[in-house]
Amino acid sequence: MNVVVTGARGYLGSALVAALGASGCDVLATDRDDGDIADPAHVRRLFETPVDRVFHLAGIVSGAGEADWDLGRRVNLDATLLLLDACRAQARRGGPTVRFVHASSIAVFGTPLPARIDDDTEPRPTLSYGTTKRIVELLLADLARRGEVDGRALRLSGVVVRPPLANGALSAFNSDVIREPLAGRAYVCPVGPEATIWVASKRATIANLLRIAEVDGAAVGAQRAVTAPALAVSIGETVAALGRVDAAAPARVGFAPDARIEAQFGRWPRAASFARAAALGLERDDSIDAIIRDYATRP
Amino acid sequence: MNVVVTGARGYLGSALVAALGASGCDVLATDRDDGDIADPAHVRRLFETPVDRVFHLAGIVSGAGEADWDLGRRVNLDATLLLLDACRAQARRGGPTVRFVHASSIAVFGTPLPARIDDDTEPRPTLSYGTTKRIVELLLADLARRGEVDGRALRLSGVVVRPPLANGALSAFNSDVIREPLAGRAYVCPVGPEATIWVASKRATIANLLRIAEVDGAAVGAQRAVTAPALAVSIGETVAALGRVDAAAPARVGFAPDARIEAQFGRWPRAASFARAAALGLERDDSIDAIIRDYATRP
Repeated sequence: MNVVVTGARGYLGSALVAALGASGCDVLATDRDDGDIADPAHVRRLFETPVDRVFHLAGIVSGAGEADWDLGRRVNLDATLLLLDACRAQARRGGPTVRFVHASSIAVFGTPLPARIDDDTEPRPTLSYGTTKRIVELLLADLARRGEVDGRALRLSGVVVRPPLANGALSAFNSDVIREPLAGRAYVCPVGPEATIWVASKRATIANLLRIAEVDGAAVGAQRAVTAPALAVSIGETVAALGRVDAAAPARVGFAPDARIEAQFGRWPRAASFARAAALGLERDDSIDAIIRDYATRP
Repeated sequence: MNVVVTGARGYLGSALVAALGASGCDVLATDRDDGDIADPAHVRRLFETPVDRVFHLAGIVSGAGEADWDLGRRVNLDATLLLLDACRAQARRGGPTVRFVHASSIAVFGTPLPARIDDDTEPRPTLSYGTTKRIVELLLADLARRGEVDGRALRLSGVVVRPPLANGALSAFNSDVIREPLAGRAYVCPVGPEATIWVASKRATIANLLRIAEVDGAAVGAQRAVTAPALAVSIGETVAALGRVDAAAPARVGFAPDARIEAQFGRWPRAASFARAAALGLERDDSIDAIIRDYATRP
């Protein structure tokens, strides 16, 4: 099985490449150092050997997409269209119909965030990042309907605990608030203790990306987009959980709430259903305690 | 006021150009004979003189978009992105922020068609045409939020009575079923008498396109998309209305329903609200009788 992974040296990408390799796939991993994903020649090279699956993780995330619309569009939209065109061209040449797993985002839901989110909640993005993710979801649904690309978009929430890489995510505080205090450093959080976020572990996220590639496309639904199961936790609960791993950690957290960040990233509802994801066999983390414990005790 | 109109020699475009010219606008009208709207050089030429407003009517419609996905994407998506880029570049150069009126379509609503449609109904397109229209709506909302383009998308329903031009619209029957019997010709309709369609006259549609360009962008709403007021009428009612203009016309109509066309084009709900459109001053035709009478008695 030939698998292309974009964004392959990122936090999720590198773990996904390792997991795919361990399962015996031939993985063609590409990241910005290997070539410009928005360059048609580079994309053509990725398809020189017939491709069975694509995991498209490359993206310009929230803050970076707000700061540079053209860059966000180039990577999130133009490059994705090139990849989809390459899939279509391969199918027209008699090659395999590609299973295309797109790392979408809960940013497809904009502000004000819905009071409840389930499989029928309408995405109304209010960031350029979420807009481009939603556009790709629509394209995947259309090309799946036409039988040209067997796409499935998995809407990821904040994946924690990320390294302190500056990737431009405005939601970076969800990892920072765990990592920094545990490392003995003071941290000022841009949302208050009552702010509620949606998070998932890297372990569960990788498992879910692999899983959604395995299911029958029709089971994903005509919209071809599924919200990955997430844990809704408040920052206050997260800080309390830190204290159960390191009693001194909570005192290292201060707060300087930013209204805009709170509105987009700190008002995620506890009322949520991930029924379709559950039916597809996607998993949810047990608790923020388990995520933090796993992070704090890993080798 | 400098106004660009694309699709300017089409059924709507030519009437819009005439109305804009009559109101004293300097109109730069472009259609396929003038240049390729998906060619960056052509789009640049359209913006050589600073542009105040764009009416973007050029498009590949339903049947043609299904038959040739690449063409639909090129005209409906790529060309629109070029136009939006030109608007953004003009604003960055210190020129006016463009009011961009996009001819969207009720095709953003896919099958099965909703039992009721109002301003909160989620668009779930199931044709490539509706998909590209929805994508542009999302882009307009994003660029309006950013203050780069003052866009507003007007979702048009079937505009009747169109000439028998083969533009690839699968909904062409909505005009054919009026025009052909009134011209003394037999017509076999691809949907049954109980099929219900949404229609509007050219007169009301032009008035609404002009009107939505005048309103304050914020009044259009953050989504920047409004469903134009439409009349819901059954084909049976339409045929009966024909008989009130020409008693011999109804007998010229036969039926050979096509399930796919009925599903996408013949199941429009009578339950509908056009509240936002009404609040913006958009108008709805009085009746199918009035539309047909107007068509039959025009010089």
